[in-house]
Amino acid sequence: MDKWYVGVDIGGTTIKLGFVTEAGEIVTKWEIPTDTNNGGRNITIHIGQAIKSKCSELNESYDRLQAIGVGAPGFIEMKTGFIYQAVNIGWKDFALKDELEKETGLQVTVDNDANIAALGEMWKGAGDGAADLLCVTLGTGVGGGLVTNGQILHGVNGMAGEIGHLTSIPEGGAPCNCGKTGCLETIASATGIARLAKEAIDKNPQTTLANKAEVTSKEVFEAAAEGDEVALEVVDEVCFHLGLALANIANTVNPAKIVIGGGVSKAGDHLLNPLAREFNRFALGRVASGAEFKIASLGNDAGIIGGAWLAKQG
Amino acid sequence: MDKWYVGVDIGGTTIKLGFVTEAGEIVTKWEIPTDTNNGGRNITIHIGQAIKSKCSELNESYDRLQAIGVGAPGFIEMKTGFIYQAVNIGWKDFALKDELEKETGLQVTVDNDANIAALGEMWKGAGDGAADLLCVTLGTGVGGGLVTNGQILHGVNGMAGEIGHLTSIPEGGAPCNCGKTGCLETIASATGIARLAKEAIDKNPQTTLANKAEVTSKEVFEAAAEGDEVALEVVDEVCFHLGLALANIANTVNPAKIVIGGGVSKAGDHLLNPLAREFNRFALGRVASGAEFKIASLGNDAGIIGGAWLAKQG
Repeated sequence: MDKWYVGVDIGGTTIKLGFVTEAGEIVTKWEIPTDTNNGGRNITIHIGQAIKSKCSELNESYDRLQAIGVGAPGFIEMKTGFIYQAVNIGWKDFALKDELEKETGLQVTVDNDANIAALGEMWKGAGDGAADLLCVTLGTGVGGGLVTNGQILHGVNGMAGEIGHLTSIPEGGAPCNCGKTGCLETIASATGIARLAKEAIDKNPQTTLANKAEVTSKEVFEAAAEGDEVALEVVDEVCFHLGLALANIANTVNPAKIVIGGGVSKAGDHLLNPLAREFNRFALGRVASGAEFKIASLGNDAGIIGGAWLAKQG
Repeated sequence: MDKWYVGVDIGGTTIKLGFVTEAGEIVTKWEIPTDTNNGGRNITIHIGQAIKSKCSELNESYDRLQAIGVGAPGFIEMKTGFIYQAVNIGWKDFALKDELEKETGLQVTVDNDANIAALGEMWKGAGDGAADLLCVTLGTGVGGGLVTNGQILHGVNGMAGEIGHLTSIPEGGAPCNCGKTGCLETIASATGIARLAKEAIDKNPQTTLANKAEVTSKEVFEAAAEGDEVALEVVDEVCFHLGLALANIANTVNPAKIVIGGGVSKAGDHLLNPLAREFNRFALGRVASGAEFKIASLGNDAGIIGGAWLAKQG
């Protein structure tokens, strides 16, 4: 009988769990609330209970579970699965791997949440098995996960893939949460796009965007699709900086796929078309021809599937 | 008795060879001319003869040699050691690995010359064993080699590390050999620095640089060290663009060491100090604190030692 792997994606409000086959198919998935009380120390207990209950519910032997892969936010030492700090969860110096192994009796592997989402897309999503893959998440911030030679790239102290903090505007850019200015995140995140739109509306009150109660990234792409010139200029500015940054990354790591996820990616081709145009201006010919742009396809399941992949590697 | 590995670094005019111990010490090294006649088809024969002659000369058994690692220019398929094209050598569709294995009876591993130099610096040079390493060569062009998780990063079609073609000036930059404009190579190579110096002299004929018959990168750094303001401005401009590009790369791959080699690196601290200043402006704090700048220390031996490392990995 095939073994199952457990993928766990720990977020600030909910924990997503799933049993996943060796082939990467989700057998069942469910969510439990994240209990941030008591410095997050109940979380591993709750995960252990949830996994056992689910086995009972499915009338499956607990032995069918082979290993657990967990994605967690915060600053993590991957080898030991030790969390130095995860502000949203309340963890500080928390031995996540050890605690969860104690609760479950299963081997646990831990990585950060952006990375396991990238692994999920690599295995079963838009990455389509590519061993060299860049995943970009355009949400409230801009995150990244890099897979090279089929493995997540962590770098010397777990900071690899922090592509939201590539500098797009070296002098006089907008302030970023990281303390620098002009980071890609200040331009290409949902927040950054809304900020650019507001600045554009102030200068061009004739735009259809001025009629919206609140201008989000979604409305900017919709207005651009309808031909609003001010919205089109915002989209061009975003895609110029994002395309340049991704081309520079691609000239460095030469990925087979560039998978774009997060809320902003829902714009689909309205984002991908101008983005690919700018990317192709700045990437070397062979690099550009080797790199395929895709919209992330797993949505909220990416973390569960990537966690299972991690568990499978052991 | 310890086995020896053979490192071979094939260039357009000479081939550097060395016997290297398991610990990475060069036992002996020598050079032979590169015979580019006959589409480069004599090269593997000459390498085979040179290795056998050297064993005789040293009164060593040929059995002492374990494997060969070769660095070659041009576009290479690493797995099969097949050279699609190497213009300087004359190779076109040349099965380098197979041919050299036939000549020597030893297992051969092939990679490109920039990459094996990076492996050499990682193993025995300024990289000091770092598993996450960026090597930058500032010579006629700007080259790069990336080591991640202790392995060379090739990317999907062998283009990883092409950092000379990161775009530093998106609009209106100088033309680059690659066909794009504003590449890092047009600014931070020896050629780029000389170009910037010439432009600065035209605008500021009072500079001491104006007295030189020919202005090279070396003279720019020397004049800057002596306080020439125009030379200092050129160095600042070079270090601004190079520091920004390296910070963006470091935010992406989070290296432990950034090793700078090539002719321009002879400026030593006159380059590293302003470079680190600009790098620290643009890199995330944790990324900057994780990354140490070093001048490459192996010089022309980097390829031989890196080749031996590659041979040792098999």
